Amino acid sequence: MRYLNDMKIRIFVTGGTFDKEYNEIDENLFFKDTHLPEMFALGRCRVPVDIRTLMMIDSLQMTSAERELIAEHCMKATEDRIIITHGTGTMVETAKVLLEEIKNKTIVFTGAMVPYKFGSSDGLFNLGAALGFVQSLPHGVYIVMNGRYFTPDNCLKNTKTGFFEEIQ
Amino acid sequence: MRYLNDMKIRIFVTGGTFDKEYNEIDENLFFKDTHLPEMFALGRCRVPVDIRTLMMIDSLQMTSAERELIAEHCMKATEDRIIITHGTGTMVETAKVLLEEIKNKTIVFTGAMVPYKFGSSDGLFNLGAALGFVQSLPHGVYIVMNGRYFTPDNCLKNTKTGFFEEIQ
Amino acid sequence: MRYLNDMKIRIFVTGGTFDKEYNEIDENLFFKDTHLPEMFALGRCRVPVDIRTLMMIDSLQMTSAERELIAEHCMKATEDRIIITHGTGTMVETAKVLLEEIKNKTIVFTGAMVPYKFGSSDGLFNLGAALGFVQSLPHGVYIVMNGRYFTPDNCLKNTKTGFFEEIQ
Amino acid sequence: MRYLNDMKIRIFVTGGTFDKEYNEIDENLFFKDTHLPEMFALGRCRVPVDIRTLMMIDSLQMTSAERELIAEHCMKATEDRIIITHGTGTMVETAKVLLEEIKNKTIVFTGAMVPYKFGSSDGLFNLGAALGFVQSLPHGVYIVMNGRYFTPDNCLKNTKTGFFEEIQ
Repeated sequence: MRYLNDMKIRIFVTGGTFDKEYNEIDENLFFKDTHLPEMFALGRCRVPVDIRTLMMIDSLQMTSAERELIAEHCMKATEDRIIITHGTGTMVETAKVLLEEIKNKTIVFTGAMVPYKFGSSDGLFNLGAALGFVQSLPHGVYIVMNGRYFTPDNCLKNTKTGFFEEIQ
Repeated sequence: MRYLNDMKIRIFVTGGTFDKEYNEIDENLFFKDTHLPEMFALGRCRVPVDIRTLMMIDSLQMTSAERELIAEHCMKATEDRIIITHGTGTMVETAKVLLEEIKNKTIVFTGAMVPYKFGSSDGLFNLGAALGFVQSLPHGVYIVMNGRYFTPDNCLKNTKTGFFEEIQ
Repeated sequence: MRYLNDMKIRIFVTGGTFDKEYNEIDENLFFKDTHLPEMFALGRCRVPVDIRTLMMIDSLQMTSAERELIAEHCMKATEDRIIITHGTGTMVETAKVLLEEIKNKTIVFTGAMVPYKFGSSDGLFNLGAALGFVQSLPHGVYIVMNGRYFTPDNCLKNTKTGFFEEIQ
Repeated sequence: MRYLNDMKIRIFVTGGTFDKEYNEIDENLFFKDTHLPEMFALGRCRVPVDIRTLMMIDSLQMTSAERELIAEHCMKATEDRIIITHGTGTMVETAKVLLEEIKNKTIVFTGAMVPYKFGSSDGLFNLGAALGFVQSLPHGVYIVMNGRYFTPDNCLKNTKTGFFEEIQ
């Protein structure tokens, strides 16, 4: 049996709740640096990963140009397995852009509903799940949230519950 | 495309560092209840899972009879996707027993090097990864640690570093 | 030597950042229940305390009538040592009201800059300090933040740094 | 009113559960560096403190010579307010040595039942309480645990419950 283990995984960081921090002076959430490296360290992860921050934004502010930028980076990447951390608000929208443009890679979007820095975050679990799926799913674009994977053309974020669901 | 998402995953708990707690009176680690349900809740997991505790032991104490018991439960389970939480010390040994006996299911072993209760544990990450792999790998018996998956006949735990490695 | 240890301490909860929680759906902070009991449990506290929630508000919204209500509860309390958890925004203002009205009790205000639920909070440290000071300072009204104690007529919150300081 | 706030507090670290870490390879607890600086930072503490590590040991292993060393450092310190972090096992014994030898300082012993690194520790609460008591109690030697303070000649650690109690 051939192992995927020696394949490097590309990680693109775009921001989202995942990486938000709490400013105790003005009581708002803000972005500083990504927490991905410390999350992989905490998970004692030994998969070779290459992490690059493309942007640090709330996905509700993401523009079409920024979506194109993400797509371009995915196309140019030498790795054919890619994880993208992304705000949950417009994750499906960005995934649909990539679904159109990229056919020969396995691309997994993931994010979090609670910032990693808050301690009680779903982020570490989601990152583990994303890493599992990205190494074993066939080429395609996927959303990995709540322990599940979805294809972007058949899912939405339920804004009432915060869970991702299939479209009936 | 057919979703695996509606498939229930069976979880068998056998103990291991994953579920150890700290006794502040005698400063030893001990077992009480499994933390799996709160870990799935923290991960905001929406995959239907059915958790059953088979035993709560340090895997260095696990007997052949107990390994047979685990195998038997896997065979009898109606689910064909199973996660087993297990101490890392003899995880490979138990996985080899199952590899002999069970051919038509996807069985993933996972564990942790640091107890979940200690806060800075690799457990939540490993559980996420296990859930990703168990939903997407073909039938077989696997070990999921450090973000990677291994087959039991080709891996060992490096007792110096605590990482799992392929046998050259 | 006479111990204060058998004296019950009265705790009045008024809200503030201390007790805020994160709503992962709308990404706002909100109030549910006070975390004081679990904080005392985590601290393995054995001082007899009686916790009562008077209100659950952001102190920037606190009215004069609510300040009077707090003063009234302090006066009526049978305990003469009282801790009040309070938002830091107007903590000094409320303390000044109590300074005018209550002379024969030791009253300590404390709060937090980061919600307890975020894990990396100053709340547990502040609560410990407040409990230390309330048991050993003479009658008076005090603010305990940043490991220090202040009298309300001689301190302010530096809104730039979030630290409490003496007025020069 | 005169503030104690500008007085520097001396902190002597001697080890104890407070500073123990978990070795995930051999599953034992061990000492590396003290966590006091990060604990003060988490508590947003602004009291001037000077932290010195005298030893890093389990207090059950502490010798008479080491107790004398601690006493000597307390006597020589220019500060007259001192916190000593110490294992709970023989905290009372060391405190009794200092009670004999040092009369003109306020010395507070504190410790923890759960290592700070485990996340769910009583350490941060105890440190806050110790800082409150050390700034407000008269000269003497005290033990601060469980939110309370004790004099060393009138307390013991209940080894069944892990709580400190007065001798009847």
